[in-house]
Amino acid sequence: MAAAHHVCGGLLLSETHTDAVMYTYRVKQVYQIAQTRFQHAMLVELAGYGKTLFLDNKIQSALLDEYMFHEPMVQPGMVTHPNPQRVLVAGGGEGATLREVLRHQTVQQAVMVDIDEQLVRYCEQYMPEWHQGSFSDPRTTLIFDDARQVIPRYRNHFDVIVSDLTDPLEAGPSQYLFTREFYQMIYDALTDEGVLTVQSGAGDPLYPQLYGCIVRTLQEVFPIVRPYWSFVASFMLPWGFVLASKKHDPLALTPDEVANRLEVRGVRGLRYYDPQTHFAMFAIPPYLREVIQTARVLTDAEPFAWEA
Amino acid sequence: MAAAHHVCGGLLLSETHTDAVMYTYRVKQVYQIAQTRFQHAMLVELAGYGKTLFLDNKIQSALLDEYMFHEPMVQPGMVTHPNPQRVLVAGGGEGATLREVLRHQTVQQAVMVDIDEQLVRYCEQYMPEWHQGSFSDPRTTLIFDDARQVIPRYRNHFDVIVSDLTDPLEAGPSQYLFTREFYQMIYDALTDEGVLTVQSGAGDPLYPQLYGCIVRTLQEVFPIVRPYWSFVASFMLPWGFVLASKKHDPLALTPDEVANRLEVRGVRGLRYYDPQTHFAMFAIPPYLREVIQTARVLTDAEPFAWEA
Amino acid sequence: MAAAHHVCGGLLLSETHTDAVMYTYRVKQVYQIAQTRFQHAMLVELAGYGKTLFLDNKIQSALLDEYMFHEPMVQPGMVTHPNPQRVLVAGGGEGATLREVLRHQTVQQAVMVDIDEQLVRYCEQYMPEWHQGSFSDPRTTLIFDDARQVIPRYRNHFDVIVSDLTDPLEAGPSQYLFTREFYQMIYDALTDEGVLTVQSGAGDPLYPQLYGCIVRTLQEVFPIVRPYWSFVASFMLPWGFVLASKKHDPLALTPDEVANRLEVRGVRGLRYYDPQTHFAMFAIPPYLREVIQTARVLTDAEPFAWEA
Amino acid sequence: MAAAHHVCGGLLLSETHTDAVMYTYRVKQVYQIAQTRFQHAMLVELAGYGKTLFLDNKIQSALLDEYMFHEPMVQPGMVTHPNPQRVLVAGGGEGATLREVLRHQTVQQAVMVDIDEQLVRYCEQYMPEWHQGSFSDPRTTLIFDDARQVIPRYRNHFDVIVSDLTDPLEAGPSQYLFTREFYQMIYDALTDEGVLTVQSGAGDPLYPQLYGCIVRTLQEVFPIVRPYWSFVASFMLPWGFVLASKKHDPLALTPDEVANRLEVRGVRGLRYYDPQTHFAMFAIPPYLREVIQTARVLTDAEPFAWEA
Repeated sequence: MAAAHHVCGGLLLSETHTDAVMYTYRVKQVYQIAQTRFQHAMLVELAGYGKTLFLDNKIQSALLDEYMFHEPMVQPGMVTHPNPQRVLVAGGGEGATLREVLRHQTVQQAVMVDIDEQLVRYCEQYMPEWHQGSFSDPRTTLIFDDARQVIPRYRNHFDVIVSDLTDPLEAGPSQYLFTREFYQMIYDALTDEGVLTVQSGAGDPLYPQLYGCIVRTLQEVFPIVRPYWSFVASFMLPWGFVLASKKHDPLALTPDEVANRLEVRGVRGLRYYDPQTHFAMFAIPPYLREVIQTARVLTDAEPFAWEA
Repeated sequence: MAAAHHVCGGLLLSETHTDAVMYTYRVKQVYQIAQTRFQHAMLVELAGYGKTLFLDNKIQSALLDEYMFHEPMVQPGMVTHPNPQRVLVAGGGEGATLREVLRHQTVQQAVMVDIDEQLVRYCEQYMPEWHQGSFSDPRTTLIFDDARQVIPRYRNHFDVIVSDLTDPLEAGPSQYLFTREFYQMIYDALTDEGVLTVQSGAGDPLYPQLYGCIVRTLQEVFPIVRPYWSFVASFMLPWGFVLASKKHDPLALTPDEVANRLEVRGVRGLRYYDPQTHFAMFAIPPYLREVIQTARVLTDAEPFAWEA
Repeated sequence: MAAAHHVCGGLLLSETHTDAVMYTYRVKQVYQIAQTRFQHAMLVELAGYGKTLFLDNKIQSALLDEYMFHEPMVQPGMVTHPNPQRVLVAGGGEGATLREVLRHQTVQQAVMVDIDEQLVRYCEQYMPEWHQGSFSDPRTTLIFDDARQVIPRYRNHFDVIVSDLTDPLEAGPSQYLFTREFYQMIYDALTDEGVLTVQSGAGDPLYPQLYGCIVRTLQEVFPIVRPYWSFVASFMLPWGFVLASKKHDPLALTPDEVANRLEVRGVRGLRYYDPQTHFAMFAIPPYLREVIQTARVLTDAEPFAWEA
Repeated sequence: MAAAHHVCGGLLLSETHTDAVMYTYRVKQVYQIAQTRFQHAMLVELAGYGKTLFLDNKIQSALLDEYMFHEPMVQPGMVTHPNPQRVLVAGGGEGATLREVLRHQTVQQAVMVDIDEQLVRYCEQYMPEWHQGSFSDPRTTLIFDDARQVIPRYRNHFDVIVSDLTDPLEAGPSQYLFTREFYQMIYDALTDEGVLTVQSGAGDPLYPQLYGCIVRTLQEVFPIVRPYWSFVASFMLPWGFVLASKKHDPLALTPDEVANRLEVRGVRGLRYYDPQTHFAMFAIPPYLREVIQTARVLTDAEPFAWEA
C-alpha cells in the first residue's frame, strides 16, 4: 500500500505522430485488448469521446464523432452517383462505412471486403452503435480477404466503391492498396458511371504528403479527380479524401439536387454532411493545393513511404 | 551522472483540455519564459510546428500554421466590407491579425488595443514572422488598455472591427469581452456599414458551447450574423468564428467579387483564404447548427462559464 | 480508419505526485477496473512490473517487487519479537502482508482488519501471487471494518501489530489512523512485549513530512521507536517505516540472532530482508533524521495534512 | 489567440526507461539548451528538484538531492583509504564529485579527466552549487581527454580513483570505460593501497544487469570487491556503486574509525553518508546478490550491451 497526494493521472491512451506531437486520451473503462492476426486492437471508453477503437495504438473511431469521418467517407460519392445500386466497401471494419452506404434505398448489393475477420467479428459484437445491424442486412456480403485478391474478380460491376483502408504503412497490410495498379483494378471493377471515394490520410500542413500522392495517383487513372476534406475531432486533424469518377462530377450538382437525392433515397439524420457541406468539403485551401502539385505517383514499384 | 537506455522523451510542452485529451508538443529550444502583469508567456521552438507562443500554457500561434488562424480571423470581414479604411483590432498581441488587416491597401487607420504591453513588446522583438513590421506601420496606432475602456471612445467610426481576444475564462482579462453589453459598444463604434469578426473558440463536438453562445449573443445586437469556421492544425481543433454585420452579407458576394476585392486591394500570397474557402467556411455542419440553437445569450450579469 | 506513422504511445497509467513529477507505466493488459464503496481499483499488467494494483490511481503493489515492500513491512517487527503468536494486520488488502506474517511458524492467530471487503475479495480472486492462500489459512481471521472500531476490542492481546494502511489523505478512510489517539489504542491492544510496525509514506527529500510526523507521534506513545526504510522500485521512492516497541529493540539483536529466528521459524526464500539488511534498514541518513527532528505530533484534533 | 479551459499541463521534461516506465518532471525555467561535441545538454529549473542537469535527455543531477549521489560516489572510497593524498576523478563533469574529494584535507593532488570540455565549462559557469569552486582549487588539475588515453600515463600513483562515468551506451563515449582492460589500467595507476569506486548504474529489479556485470568484471582485477548502493531520489531508482580495493576493506573499519577519519580530515555537513550509512550501503539485498552471481565479465571484445 502506498502513495501521496496528486493532481492528475490515471489510465491514459497515447498516440504519437512522428516527433512533433502526442495526443493523450483519458481512459475510463477497457472493453477489450486483443491481438488479431493482422493488428493490435483495443476497445476502450474514453472521457469525452466515449467508446473508441484503436488499432496498433492509432485511433480509428470514437462514438462522439464517428459521423465526422464516416459521412464524408461515403456520402459525397453516393450522392454524386445518380443511382447507386451495387457498392463495394474496401476495409471499414467497424461497419459504419457500410451503414452509411446502406442508408441509400437504391442500394441492392453491398459487398464489404476486409482482411481481418477477427476484428470485424469483434466490432460486430462490441460496437453496435457503429454498424447498427449492417453486417446482417440482407443486401450485405462480407468477404474476408485481401482487397487486391477480391476486386479483380469484378468487371464493370460496381456503381460506387468506397476505399476505407488503413494508411499504407511500410510492410503493413495496406501498403499496396494505394498504388496506380490497385486503382486501375478499381477502375475496371466500376461501371462506366462508377464513382470511387478514398480515405486519404491527414490534411494538415505537417503530414499532407500521402494525401497529395493519392490525388496525383488517381489522376493517372480517372478522368475526374476531386480532392476534398473534413475535420475529424478525435483525430485532432483535418482529414483528406478523394473522389475519383469516370463520368459524374460532384461539383456539377446543385445544392437542391444534393438535397433531393438524399430525400428520395430516404437518407436522414446526418450530422456532418448536407447540401452546403457537400460543396464546402471540396474547397480545399491553397496550402493543400500546393502539396498536390508537388506530389508523386504511387506505384507497386514505389509505394508510399514516410520520409525519415 | 546517471541513467539507462531509453526510447523516447525530452523537453515537452503539454496542454490539457478538461479531462478528455492532452496534447504534447516536443520542444527543441526555449527562447523566453516570462510572467507579464496579465499572463504567463512562453516562446519556444517546437518540432514540426516551429516557433510557437503559449500563454498560460495554452498554445496561441505556431509559425507552421498561424495563417490557418489569422487569415480566417481577418479576411472574411475585410472582404465583406466594400471599402475598409478604418479598422480596430481588439487583442491580437502577436501582430499577425494587424498584419492581415494592413494587407488591404484601402486601410488608412488601424487601431490595435491590447491590455498587455509587455507581451506585445515581447512579440514585437521575438516574433517578427508574425507582425512583419505591422507595429511600426505608419497607419498603426497601438493602445495598451482594456478594450472595454477604449471602444466606447469611438462612435460611428470603424468600418471593420476584429475581436481577437483570448477565451473568456473566469476571472481572466477577457471575461466581460464576450457579452451583449460589450457587443453593443462595438456596434456603436462601427459605421452603418460596419463589419465585425470574432474569434469564438473551439468548433468541435466536445467544446462548442462558447461558440454557440457567441452566435446567440451577437444575434441580439446585429441584424446579420454568420457563423463560420476553419481548422487550425496546431490547435488540433476546428475553430469557430462569427461575422456580424450591420448591412453587408458575406454570402451575398460572388467568388469573382471576392477575387476582385483581394486583387484591387493588393492582397496576395494567402494560404488558407481564397474565393472558394470564403464560402466553404460559412458552411458549418448540422452538429454545430444544433449547438447554436440551444445556446444562451451572454451578459455582464451572466458571462460565459464552462460547466463543471 | 485513420492515422500516420508514430514512434511511441499506447495504453499508459500515470501517477502524479504534487506538481513535481509524474510516473507513467506502460499497460499491456487490463484485468479489472472497478469502484468499490471506498476506492477506485485497477488491476493491470504493466510492462516490466507485471501484474499491478492501483487504488485511486496510486500504485499499491507490483508483482516484480512487492517483496521490496512487504518484507520490510513485516519482517523487522516479527523478528524483533522473540515469539510472535498473535498478530494483527491493519489494512494490507492484497494479502501479502498477511502472507509474510504467516511465514512464521510461531503464529497461531492472525487477524486482518480491512475496511474494504470488495477490494479484499477482488485481490483474493485475481492476485493469488500476493496472498498465496493466506486468506484461507486456518490461523487467519478476516474482519471487514474500520480499524478504529476493531482494535479497542482487544487488550493486552497481540504480540505484533502491522499497520499497512493507505496514506492519511484528507477525508480518506485512513485519515485518523495515524494519530496519537490511534497509536494509544494499538499500544493497549499489544502485550507488554508487543511490537508495532507502521508503513509511513515516502522517505525521499521531497515528501518526507508524513514519515517525520509518524515517528514523532509514536515517540509520544511507545518507549522504543526505530525509524527504518527500504526502497520500493515500483513506487520510484525510498519508503519509510517505523518500528515501535514496548520492550524489545531491533538493534539489540545480533545478525546471528536474526538468522537464527528466521531459521527456527521456517522463514525461507526472502529476497529483500536478511540478517544484513535488517540492520541496514535502520541506518537512515542524516537528511531524514533532520526531518524527524522538526516534525509535529499528529492528533485527532490535528491529523496529517499535506501543505498546499 | 486561442484555447479552452484546462486542468494540468505546461513545460515538462520526460525521461523514458525501456518501455516500462517514463518519468516526467515539471520545468519552471530553462537556463540553457546546447549540443556539445559529445552530448546534448539541458540545464533547467524543475518544480521540487530545483536546478537540474540533463544529458541526452537523461537526468544527471538535481540540486535537491545531488548529495544522495555524490556522497555515496566518493566518501566510502575516500574513507576506506587511510590517507588519500592523490586522487583521480574520471568523468564527473558537474564538479560535485571533485568537491567531495577535496573536502578531505589529506588531498594534495586531484586530477579530473572529462572528455567534454564544453560541458565542464558550462557547469562551471551555471552550476556553482555543485562544484563550489572546486575547478579553481589549487590542488585541482583538469584534463579534457578520453580517460583511456590519460590513465595509462600514471603508474602506481593514485591513492583513490573515482569513476563517475556515464553509462556504457552502445557507441557512446563511455562504452569501453567499463571493461576488464580499462579496470586493469586503473589497477596499474593505483598505488598498492589504492581504492577505486565506480558508479555502476541502476540497482532495482528491472535494470540491474550493468551493476552485476561491473561487480563481476572488477572481481577479475581486484582482490577486494564490495558492491554497495544508495538511493537517488531524482533518479527514481536505487543506485549501484562498487568499491574495489587492493588492500583496504571498507567493512574492516568500525563506525568509530569512520567518524574519526571524517573528523580529522575536516569533512563536515554530509547529508547522506555517515558512520551508520557507510555500513548500511554495503548491505545489498538478496535479489541484487543473485544478479551478480549470474552476470558476465565485460571486455573490450564484448562490452556491455542492453538486451533487446
